[in-house]
Amino acid sequence: MSFLLDTEWARRLYHEHAEQMPIIDYHCHLDPKLIAEDHRFANITELWLGGDHYKWRAMRANGVAEQYITGDASPWEKFQKWAETMPYLMRNPLYHWSAMELSSAFGIYEPLTGENAREVFDHCNSLLADPGYTARALMVRYGVEVVCTTDDPADTLEWHKKIADSKFEVKVLPAWRPDKAMAVTGGQAYLDYLKKLGDAAGVEIVEYDDLIEALDRRADFFSKRGCRIADHGLSRFPYREASVGEVHSLFTQVLAGGSIDADEAEILQTALLLDLCRINHKQGWVQQFHFGPMRNVNSRMMELLGPDTGYDCIGDYRAAEPLARTLNALDSNSCLAPTILYNINPADNTWVAALCGCFQDGSRPGKIQMGAAWWFNDQLYGMEAQINALSMQGLLSRFVGMLTDSRSFLSYPRHDYFRRLLCRMLGRDLEQGLIPESQYNRVAAMVEDIAYRNAKSYFNL
Amino acid sequence: MSFLLDTEWARRLYHEHAEQMPIIDYHCHLDPKLIAEDHRFANITELWLGGDHYKWRAMRANGVAEQYITGDASPWEKFQKWAETMPYLMRNPLYHWSAMELSSAFGIYEPLTGENAREVFDHCNSLLADPGYTARALMVRYGVEVVCTTDDPADTLEWHKKIADSKFEVKVLPAWRPDKAMAVTGGQAYLDYLKKLGDAAGVEIVEYDDLIEALDRRADFFSKRGCRIADHGLSRFPYREASVGEVHSLFTQVLAGGSIDADEAEILQTALLLDLCRINHKQGWVQQFHFGPMRNVNSRMMELLGPDTGYDCIGDYRAAEPLARTLNALDSNSCLAPTILYNINPADNTWVAALCGCFQDGSRPGKIQMGAAWWFNDQLYGMEAQINALSMQGLLSRFVGMLTDSRSFLSYPRHDYFRRLLCRMLGRDLEQGLIPESQYNRVAAMVEDIAYRNAKSYFNL
Amino acid sequence: MSFLLDTEWARRLYHEHAEQMPIIDYHCHLDPKLIAEDHRFANITELWLGGDHYKWRAMRANGVAEQYITGDASPWEKFQKWAETMPYLMRNPLYHWSAMELSSAFGIYEPLTGENAREVFDHCNSLLADPGYTARALMVRYGVEVVCTTDDPADTLEWHKKIADSKFEVKVLPAWRPDKAMAVTGGQAYLDYLKKLGDAAGVEIVEYDDLIEALDRRADFFSKRGCRIADHGLSRFPYREASVGEVHSLFTQVLAGGSIDADEAEILQTALLLDLCRINHKQGWVQQFHFGPMRNVNSRMMELLGPDTGYDCIGDYRAAEPLARTLNALDSNSCLAPTILYNINPADNTWVAALCGCFQDGSRPGKIQMGAAWWFNDQLYGMEAQINALSMQGLLSRFVGMLTDSRSFLSYPRHDYFRRLLCRMLGRDLEQGLIPESQYNRVAAMVEDIAYRNAKSYFNL
Repeated sequence: MSFLLDTEWARRLYHEHAEQMPIIDYHCHLDPKLIAEDHRFANITELWLGGDHYKWRAMRANGVAEQYITGDASPWEKFQKWAETMPYLMRNPLYHWSAMELSSAFGIYEPLTGENAREVFDHCNSLLADPGYTARALMVRYGVEVVCTTDDPADTLEWHKKIADSKFEVKVLPAWRPDKAMAVTGGQAYLDYLKKLGDAAGVEIVEYDDLIEALDRRADFFSKRGCRIADHGLSRFPYREASVGEVHSLFTQVLAGGSIDADEAEILQTALLLDLCRINHKQGWVQQFHFGPMRNVNSRMMELLGPDTGYDCIGDYRAAEPLARTLNALDSNSCLAPTILYNINPADNTWVAALCGCFQDGSRPGKIQMGAAWWFNDQLYGMEAQINALSMQGLLSRFVGMLTDSRSFLSYPRHDYFRRLLCRMLGRDLEQGLIPESQYNRVAAMVEDIAYRNAKSYFNL
Repeated sequence: MSFLLDTEWARRLYHEHAEQMPIIDYHCHLDPKLIAEDHRFANITELWLGGDHYKWRAMRANGVAEQYITGDASPWEKFQKWAETMPYLMRNPLYHWSAMELSSAFGIYEPLTGENAREVFDHCNSLLADPGYTARALMVRYGVEVVCTTDDPADTLEWHKKIADSKFEVKVLPAWRPDKAMAVTGGQAYLDYLKKLGDAAGVEIVEYDDLIEALDRRADFFSKRGCRIADHGLSRFPYREASVGEVHSLFTQVLAGGSIDADEAEILQTALLLDLCRINHKQGWVQQFHFGPMRNVNSRMMELLGPDTGYDCIGDYRAAEPLARTLNALDSNSCLAPTILYNINPADNTWVAALCGCFQDGSRPGKIQMGAAWWFNDQLYGMEAQINALSMQGLLSRFVGMLTDSRSFLSYPRHDYFRRLLCRMLGRDLEQGLIPESQYNRVAAMVEDIAYRNAKSYFNL
Repeated sequence: MSFLLDTEWARRLYHEHAEQMPIIDYHCHLDPKLIAEDHRFANITELWLGGDHYKWRAMRANGVAEQYITGDASPWEKFQKWAETMPYLMRNPLYHWSAMELSSAFGIYEPLTGENAREVFDHCNSLLADPGYTARALMVRYGVEVVCTTDDPADTLEWHKKIADSKFEVKVLPAWRPDKAMAVTGGQAYLDYLKKLGDAAGVEIVEYDDLIEALDRRADFFSKRGCRIADHGLSRFPYREASVGEVHSLFTQVLAGGSIDADEAEILQTALLLDLCRINHKQGWVQQFHFGPMRNVNSRMMELLGPDTGYDCIGDYRAAEPLARTLNALDSNSCLAPTILYNINPADNTWVAALCGCFQDGSRPGKIQMGAAWWFNDQLYGMEAQINALSMQGLLSRFVGMLTDSRSFLSYPRHDYFRRLLCRMLGRDLEQGLIPESQYNRVAAMVEDIAYRNAKSYFNL
């Protein structure tokens, strides 16, 4: 099957090289409990539609009532509505992802529609009863070698411990996501979180330095559990300098239940982010910045369904200055960890790619990375745009490549999609003489590097 | 003729489907008086160059003196200067538009140049004397089924009445554009407008609620005249919350001839926009937001020629937050009408397309629409970019498609251009296997939907 | 060799037209001293790697230590590290530029790698000993007719004088770059500069008007030395109006060694920029605005290496309003010189291209130009995007085309790259019927215009 592979070069690059590589999924949102317990899925609706807010958005846009999306309709009814939506998805990435998920996991090669929905539903459900379709079995089926989940510093990582103890052939590592520690405007929820974090760390948090101490201890614990990577989710990238005294006093104010204004919150978040980055550097981790989304913009649905249900979008915040200053503050203090920058607004692609070049310090190849096309950009044109921006401004050859960023055990075809697209782009370059044909072997090595080896080395796996 | 149709798929999609569809031009700036009176054009210069600021800009850029553009030169001289400019327009959309306009209306298939200008001028003028070239005849010639004009709430809609009474086979509907009611910093011009609006509505406007009452009554009147759609033109998208009391008091200040600062103006405009949107919802209309341009940036020419003469451009204002908050405020109050978002800055395409998804409520397919590529973007690459952004983030299949946004009776080939381009893109997708060939019939139905049926249903025509 | 020329049309356009044209390099950073002295290069490292911060950035990103980039390693060691980096540059513009530089100057057609590095190094060095490889000989080899360097108003232009007196067949003209006169927040360095400028002009600068008087006199001097073009480098485009009195008083404050805040600096810079633009108009020069970069974002490396060493990047500042207001202020006062706008952020391409159209006054074709893809955009996709934005919003046919913006005598293949790409785009248009084949001769004339004649006429050369 030559999907996306429109030159002979692309087909060779893919089939002889890309396709062979194991998957390192260095950033995802899989629930480690499901892996630890080797979860068996009740039906295709649970596995495929539960929690997938991409699909939910598409159904809403197609006029499907919420009852059939997140409501109390039966698994079959929900599946049916989704199947009826599928033919309306032409050109949307879900059209490709869904087809690849059905074919790779269930051997279904015809497009899903309202007409064949029942047949597909029954077929998938009968397969799901098979031991080859548990959480772990799916990971093995897709050739996964490593996954890094996304975990809060206060997390016990008990499920990761169980997985590690169980000698599962796929390495499942925790990853550090301390966003809650930065949510300083959260009021009581923030204070509750600090309590929980302090308890986990054995530190009573009564001033700013206690918070850093607690995070420090938890980071040691995460490292012991195999953590290699941190992640920071930021809507509007903060950078507002202030004295240590001012930071401490603002934090004390927050701890006392006082309120702070937007500028003060930015001061605190700037300090926290820099301190968190120092921890990343100290632990020898890679750090990721995911910046720019506007989250939960629909209050009515936030009230009904909570976060991560399909009501986030893309902000048009300016981030170049604060991001550059953050990297500079860290570099100036010799504590800039290897860093991956993910922008949510594709209009930012070029400046993000160019900024990376200002903090490459020659200590290792590709120390500062432009991250793979993220979220709304994780599709044909978005991925092409990210690969082109990176290629034009930096070294594609040093790119650590794809990740799923997904909650689903069926998302690994996204790696396949990425690999095909990469081979397509390089194949066209070879075809057009933009890369000399004589360099085919070098291109092939680059494909393998990007698909697998760069990540293995970058994350020290 | 296979212009733009570069695959066999594209040619089939176009000739067997797209080309057959009537035109629904749901947003334009045609003068209803010309339709009511079935205007006969004195010459090709009046029909083709009068009022077309796209062409004026091109002539200025080509070094043509203003005398030959908007000045007192003769129709022939103006035409000649335009004809001499044409060969310099290669790659500009006017090169295609103009050629399609000349060929579709006048059967002229060779490129217009200074050399053949006289011949073309005479040929067109002789045809224009023919009854087949009146305002109405041109609309019929191009297969137009419905047009929605752009009208001020204070307008009497007398010409629409005359058209309706005349049993013209093309439906000509008014559309609601209350921008003047929002121009709160306009000083005396604003007060004059409020007087005029109040008179039209039979309401004396002495406080904020009177203005809303007047608009409400006029909206009822517009609905009676067949209005289905509102339009809001916004440079910098306003969103600044304030109490009802503050809004009322600011408005009273304005009414008294007092001045308000930029933040206060934004408060008033926010309130007005939300109230206008409530009216849109109450009337069952679709609402359009056209946002982002910088208007009349050349003061010297504004002084000389007034607005809409080719001195507007594209702003780089941030709009994601205010737009999201506006939609959220309406959705939270259950008064979010079906909405079309048109951004003028193509760098905003992706976030606009993604934002739509946060307010799809399942009540109808494609409730929130990303609008067709607008104004400066209404060209080959701009339309491709809009179609791709929409496709990647939403459902292209539910798109209500093209509009002319034009002042000219010769602009309908823009629908043809759009349809060809759409067929070209889908044809390439089929050719490359991005859409399976087996789904051709579904693609064909989608083409017809986008060209015609989606708009018919969305606007309830 | 048909690199980039993927249609028969493109090959004809290039070989029969573009390739024949001399080069007018109207904006570069060549050192006039090297031309005056007809510098002979000690080795390929000096000629090719010394001062080229594009290559330095690539080496840093590839993990090469600074010692081998700007440090004390030997020329051979530096060359070797660069050669080892080359295979990792696939898809980066340096991969093409470097190959074209090696082939066009040294007849080397195989890709440079660590393996053949020594051989290439020795080969190039032996050629560099030849009289055909001096600074002047290289310019002649590449068919250069005119270059405009980049010079400070306080510069003596002594080297330009020597070049002019030497009857060198290539015209080498000074260009006016008064950025230092606008660096009002520079503290003592600014005061020192004012002293130097005043001395050069024979004016004692004790108030604002003296500065303008000094600049005026130096501009006369530059014109006498053949200057035709000014250039203004601006990070965040300034526009903040104030009274003449306020401007004068702020300047006096600066002269007295006082400090001013960011808003006050913007006021001063606005006044200075407008006054400088008046000088440009008075002298009959073309003015260029290069806006948007963030410079020297890495403090540690700024400390070590100084500016222009590869630590600049792309800002995401908003510039549409200040730029429009600047052009408007000049146009309103009848002192808007022909202007070229270069944006560093490609997300701004479309609005920049559209803005040009608002200040075309019909006095000459293409009076306001969108500049060629600048710096980080000077590559395959960036140039395509710039050409497309210009084409869609304005008149490509009137474009003054390419420049090197370079410090190197080996950069002229960038003109060749641009010409090939232009021919490729137009060739594809012809192939696809977007331009009728019957218009080939007109396209060919346009290619020659853009490659050469438009610049010759625009800069009055």
